[in-house]
Amino acid sequence: MNPRQFLPQIEARLKSILAEETQGSPLSEAMCYSVLGGGKRVRARLVWAAGALGEPHCEHDLAAAACAVELAHAYSLVHDDLPAMDDDDERRGQPACHVRFGEATAILTGNALQVLAFTQLTGMTEPALAMRAVRLLGEAIGSGGMAAGQQFDLHSDPGLLDAAEIERICWLKTGELIRASLLLGGLAGRCDPAALEILERFSRPYGLEYQIVDDLQDSQTDQTAPNYASVVGAEAARRRIGVLHAEAASTLDELPASGDALRTILAELPVSG
Amino acid sequence: MNPRQFLPQIEARLKSILAEETQGSPLSEAMCYSVLGGGKRVRARLVWAAGALGEPHCEHDLAAAACAVELAHAYSLVHDDLPAMDDDDERRGQPACHVRFGEATAILTGNALQVLAFTQLTGMTEPALAMRAVRLLGEAIGSGGMAAGQQFDLHSDPGLLDAAEIERICWLKTGELIRASLLLGGLAGRCDPAALEILERFSRPYGLEYQIVDDLQDSQTDQTAPNYASVVGAEAARRRIGVLHAEAASTLDELPASGDALRTILAELPVSG
Repeated sequence: MNPRQFLPQIEARLKSILAEETQGSPLSEAMCYSVLGGGKRVRARLVWAAGALGEPHCEHDLAAAACAVELAHAYSLVHDDLPAMDDDDERRGQPACHVRFGEATAILTGNALQVLAFTQLTGMTEPALAMRAVRLLGEAIGSGGMAAGQQFDLHSDPGLLDAAEIERICWLKTGELIRASLLLGGLAGRCDPAALEILERFSRPYGLEYQIVDDLQDSQTDQTAPNYASVVGAEAARRRIGVLHAEAASTLDELPASGDALRTILAELPVSG
Repeated sequence: MNPRQFLPQIEARLKSILAEETQGSPLSEAMCYSVLGGGKRVRARLVWAAGALGEPHCEHDLAAAACAVELAHAYSLVHDDLPAMDDDDERRGQPACHVRFGEATAILTGNALQVLAFTQLTGMTEPALAMRAVRLLGEAIGSGGMAAGQQFDLHSDPGLLDAAEIERICWLKTGELIRASLLLGGLAGRCDPAALEILERFSRPYGLEYQIVDDLQDSQTDQTAPNYASVVGAEAARRRIGVLHAEAASTLDELPASGDALRTILAELPVSG
């Protein structure tokens, strides 16, 4: 299977998961709205690309992992947009979940999507693999990962942050789930320890670069939340992107042709350094 | 081990889980505040009492299940109290999490506690058991369980509900997690299928009775949210409690002396029917 087949399959699977698991639920509409409203599915692609370093015929487990990280990501966006959080009214050109359905529904929708992310992993073929996956996802999005990043994001004074601190926030709020996507793909694809180690090493510069590129694009617009480019300046942000990109690329150089999917994903990030 | 030893062990374990897994997290203080601030630990006791129907020496897995349901319960209380939800300023005589730490922190604290509930289950000794446990907890608190109950609770007009509808809300918002506590205890305790079936049958009247007793006590105070006693009247609520209590008790009559812990817990509910 190639990535062009994988993504439509993930989209269809997310749709059927939501149809089946939220049937009759008063949260069904808001959950579908929040998950199926487009999006680049970068995290699902990372799962697939990491899995390509492993054994063939792991599509079932790769799909479970890909749906889990996309559901976790969708949950985080619903909550990030809340009035008490980033207070954004729009998401991908549509009304944010809390604008469309109300604040309470958006909170509950995010909560239920987080649950669905974890339960997807129980659909993996081997219980021991599923267990490691649940732990990995939990570390990525819990109090030591994404939730911590969001907490720092909301409670830090951008004027007082230094480069190391804003980089830490970038890592926690975005990098951790990107790392988990790569490692879940590696686990689901039955990668050997050497490949898992490369995925781990690649995840750090790539995850950071991903968020700094985003921050650089956002820094033109009105910003009150901490933003890497605003904190260190656009020029320094571009230089940092260049360094991280080179580091990520050189890690991927260690991989044979099976690493091409990861190289393609990396190449999509605009390098301005 | 008897229940008097089990509860202090759970309390100590919750404390050490929070100390270890939230170390360095900006959410650590709010998470500890929300979990360790007292509470009757009814769900942990249900886990233990259900486990008593099974094999000895399952304390490790019972403790994992008990901590998971208590963390899930704590998460639900933090979010229920939010301004967009029930908007309660106090919890157990102390400022609610959102009053003490702010709304954004309370949202993230609840989210991180939910994560911790799931990851606790991965500490069980057998991966296949842990997988079933993750699925069971997910069903109980997700879009078909507690989150759905809270959504109905917040969006139903109490004046338009009939007895069946308010009973369904009671079941979803409280009964589902009580059922999960009993079944997780049964699984962790390696109960045989016959005992699991009794736990399942007991959970329905007990879980409902538990919430209706709570609603009856609350119906004296100012209430805008749907409340069983307000919808059907105090007299009818008392009658319903009596019927449910008898049903729960007669289910427990099928158990030998190992069911005494469950009988004790049931007997603590004030029967006014």
